Amino acid sequence: MRVSRTYVPTLKEAPREAEIVSHQLLLRAGYIRKLAAGIYSFLPLGWRVVRKVEEIVREEMDRAGALEVRLPAVQPAELWRESGRWDVYGPELLRFRDRKQGEFCLGPTHEEVITDLVRGEVRSYRQLPLNLYQMQTKFRDEIRPRAGLMRGREFIMKDAYSFDASVEGAKRSYQAMYEAYERIFRRCGLAFRAVEADSGNIGGSMSHEFQVLAASGEDAIVSCPACGYTANVEQADVGRRAATGVEGSSPSLERVDTPGQRKAEEVARFLGIEVGRVVKTLVYRADDTLVAALVPGDRELNEIQWRKRLGAERLEPATPAEIVEAGALVGFVGPVGLRVASLWLDATLEGERGLVVGANEEDAHFIGFDPARDAPEATVASVAMARGGDPCGRCGGSFEAFKGIEVGHVFYLGTKYSQALGATVNHEGGDEAPLEMGCYGIGVTRIVAAAIEQHHDGDGICWPVALAPYPVHVLALQPQDSAVMEAAARLETALSGQGLEPLVDDRDIRPGAKFKDADLVGLPWRVTLSQRGLAAGEVEVRERSTGVEERLPLDAVVPYLQAKIAEALRG
Amino acid sequence: MRVSRTYVPTLKEAPREAEIVSHQLLLRAGYIRKLAAGIYSFLPLGWRVVRKVEEIVREEMDRAGALEVRLPAVQPAELWRESGRWDVYGPELLRFRDRKQGEFCLGPTHEEVITDLVRGEVRSYRQLPLNLYQMQTKFRDEIRPRAGLMRGREFIMKDAYSFDASVEGAKRSYQAMYEAYERIFRRCGLAFRAVEADSGNIGGSMSHEFQVLAASGEDAIVSCPACGYTANVEQADVGRRAATGVEGSSPSLERVDTPGQRKAEEVARFLGIEVGRVVKTLVYRADDTLVAALVPGDRELNEIQWRKRLGAERLEPATPAEIVEAGALVGFVGPVGLRVASLWLDATLEGERGLVVGANEEDAHFIGFDPARDAPEATVASVAMARGGDPCGRCGGSFEAFKGIEVGHVFYLGTKYSQALGATVNHEGGDEAPLEMGCYGIGVTRIVAAAIEQHHDGDGICWPVALAPYPVHVLALQPQDSAVMEAAARLETALSGQGLEPLVDDRDIRPGAKFKDADLVGLPWRVTLSQRGLAAGEVEVRERSTGVEERLPLDAVVPYLQAKIAEALRG
Repeated sequence: MRVSRTYVPTLKEAPREAEIVSHQLLLRAGYIRKLAAGIYSFLPLGWRVVRKVEEIVREEMDRAGALEVRLPAVQPAELWRESGRWDVYGPELLRFRDRKQGEFCLGPTHEEVITDLVRGEVRSYRQLPLNLYQMQTKFRDEIRPRAGLMRGREFIMKDAYSFDASVEGAKRSYQAMYEAYERIFRRCGLAFRAVEADSGNIGGSMSHEFQVLAASGEDAIVSCPACGYTANVEQADVGRRAATGVEGSSPSLERVDTPGQRKAEEVARFLGIEVGRVVKTLVYRADDTLVAALVPGDRELNEIQWRKRLGAERLEPATPAEIVEAGALVGFVGPVGLRVASLWLDATLEGERGLVVGANEEDAHFIGFDPARDAPEATVASVAMARGGDPCGRCGGSFEAFKGIEVGHVFYLGTKYSQALGATVNHEGGDEAPLEMGCYGIGVTRIVAAAIEQHHDGDGICWPVALAPYPVHVLALQPQDSAVMEAAARLETALSGQGLEPLVDDRDIRPGAKFKDADLVGLPWRVTLSQRGLAAGEVEVRERSTGVEERLPLDAVVPYLQAKIAEALRG
Repeated sequence: MRVSRTYVPTLKEAPREAEIVSHQLLLRAGYIRKLAAGIYSFLPLGWRVVRKVEEIVREEMDRAGALEVRLPAVQPAELWRESGRWDVYGPELLRFRDRKQGEFCLGPTHEEVITDLVRGEVRSYRQLPLNLYQMQTKFRDEIRPRAGLMRGREFIMKDAYSFDASVEGAKRSYQAMYEAYERIFRRCGLAFRAVEADSGNIGGSMSHEFQVLAASGEDAIVSCPACGYTANVEQADVGRRAATGVEGSSPSLERVDTPGQRKAEEVARFLGIEVGRVVKTLVYRADDTLVAALVPGDRELNEIQWRKRLGAERLEPATPAEIVEAGALVGFVGPVGLRVASLWLDATLEGERGLVVGANEEDAHFIGFDPARDAPEATVASVAMARGGDPCGRCGGSFEAFKGIEVGHVFYLGTKYSQALGATVNHEGGDEAPLEMGCYGIGVTRIVAAAIEQHHDGDGICWPVALAPYPVHVLALQPQDSAVMEAAARLETALSGQGLEPLVDDRDIRPGAKFKDADLVGLPWRVTLSQRGLAAGEVEVRERSTGVEERLPLDAVVPYLQAKIAEALRG
């Protein structure tokens, strides 16, 4: 493809509203344009990247035995009423009436439609397993669409739904999708982690998020290099430290004046100690009782984990009145003499001594706090967010911390939808039971953004070979020179013949502008054809991601790139 | 693909609401299912057909130099206000508000969005021509969705938009699309006609419809085999007959009693003559004057053509009061003594004699009507719908009549949208002028239905090879027999290796049910593997469309089918 014949409107500057690098580069390099908040048009290069992702997803879904279908985008309200979601789904669900005043929505997901499709037609266990998937434009009316393709309102998703007769079958379907997802993200050239998203009730974890690792990621995750266990910091199972066997006697508990020092950071600075030595005492209401947790000053409470451990329905910070009721004082809350139904000690504080806690009186803290001695009633458990260096709850190894962008999610649904919509099958014995379902999503357009977050530098995008709109950028520096354009045409034909159609920059502009655009657009390989180089029998070949340059004879370029690209695609 | 592993829920009977054959067969053969009025899910086989169509469209659009993009489905009202269409587009435009009360619509077409995309970014004639296309799910809130995929509310369309600096450039872009469309429909294996849809003002016709010929088509078209001119019957340019030079004297005008005989059919039956000899006198109001047309009793008035020839803004049937005002009597209207501003004689009546017309009095007609003698003031012109046998208005040849299904439309838009939205380019001389645009649509999902309307028989679908979900149906009659399944597996591997992946019916059901399903599903080639046949070293190969059967050794099947399929795809 010649640049003069395609449409790549590059920009010097990204619009100010583009805050993250993938959004900036997608706009600047001419891949997308905004139509409305969270709604983007894909220009030719951007659409080619989407189609590369789609093709990888399709191949791996097909290989895993899933069948591609296409379900409608516009869905009748009555189905959502049957599942009970019409009333509970928030304003992200775009609802409208058609010309006959029928109620419809623009599908953000398709559990109802797919369950309706198979009920009545899949009747026997012999027709199972069945896994149907589609690639489709979805709409979610996000309140704050942002970050370009990262969190748009209109986006392309691959959604799959599996149907099985038994829980064991559903687990096999789940596992097949898990493995297909690993292959998909690996083939996309992405560094990622499969993260346990929730410890379900049915035989261990039945929900995983696939997170692309990138500094700009919204999700904080920890991963154990020893056993591979990986989870969101909210979900991570943090282990208890090995008993440290502290030597000598514990310093005694002593009241010190801390005038006006309320926050852990303030107290630590005032006392000249690390903030992690100051213990936050957090009073909450769990359903109808007051509870408290002791957490190091430099860590966040993990409400999700604590609520689970408490077995509570609701968990909310106590009101100032409730804090007084517990015998404490706001700003100087401490565990000594606190009246709560249960006290929890974060596992990272176990065995520690000489800590600082609030004294439950104005402008005062205790130093020399020893949890085992001074709060022996406390239950030891992981109630703070996990972080790098924490012990792995599975094997005791040491967690590494990452930031991630969620690009995929596999989920065991059980019979939630099949029961609500009456989708049953006859089992081998003759019993009739609701279908066991799973659902599996991939954010196709979000992958495009995530890949850039992971693969870019100060000059532009550095596409993984599998996702690049074209694998090679051929720069004809002097397109008015027939020798240069003949070499470009020869290269174009030869590369295309190998399935490696290049983008040929044949514009009559300064070489500097071509180099700049090539870096911005970010194709994996750049081949520069210049009058001087060709006269010397040389062509410059440069790898975008490493900046490594080689000088090769023109005829050596195609076999060289073929080998390099094949190697990159093998991964 | 094994039938046991895919999902082809065939039905014995089509739901009663399915009236046309494509709708019935798509439901019965397990290609689609209905979700709501005019909204369908595509099952695995149906989706494969859609993807085959899409791939042909994509290849030919790319070959023609068009660039694939993807524009949003959800469009802001403000753009439609700029073009002026927000207020004039009818209720087919599905409008809604998002959670912030912004006004949006679900795009039925994308002229506004594409014009907005290029304005400001395409600035110079040097960036032109540009042709951007997409394949996308569209929504049109039809009042009476019907006929399955033929006229749905949600459907897939390929829409393309060309931009040029000049009218000449726009004509070249139009011509390139016209030729691409011819290639597309030819490759789809469809018999079609390109029909002149409107005689534009700019150098002849600049709008063509592509009609797939089928008895169930909604559009009546005529085509001249001599010069190729083809048009809708409403648009067709009908020629005047050669002067017939009638011998002898014309019978005189004579009043006859026709008690209670009002309609042309009634009068013809009463008088024992052909209905075409009875002339209908149709009184209309053209803007503010009364006019009348004389049309043979067996033809329809062509209001579109007549209004154009009259140069009128509005043309409506006269009220009974107006008919009286013209000196006529409802039911017995005739041209003799009629008081109208202008009288028109359909060209097919020119030179005729001995016709029958109303007498403008109760229960009476005139026989022996001679237009030249009795209505010399009449303007002779083609004001009736064209039909087969009429003279071609271009070359005088004789029209053939067809019924068609519109599957594509190419349209020269001029500067309608570019002017409204301010999309201009600088010309070579430096002048700035609005972009010259064209738009080009193909009903991707409608092609699926149209192909079936053209290719089916009493037993099911007979897919053209290029559109079939799989080219070959392998029936393993006794799947419990290992020799049969080994032969099936060998064939599957060998065919797949040639890019001809078959559908293998490995279900443990009666052979009769397999044959019935195979006919219904309609793959072009059927290969039957039976215990008896294999024992005799023979395999039965049958062409779906012709019913021709061959008996071949197993090893001869693949080369045989390869050759046949390659031949079919060459066209």
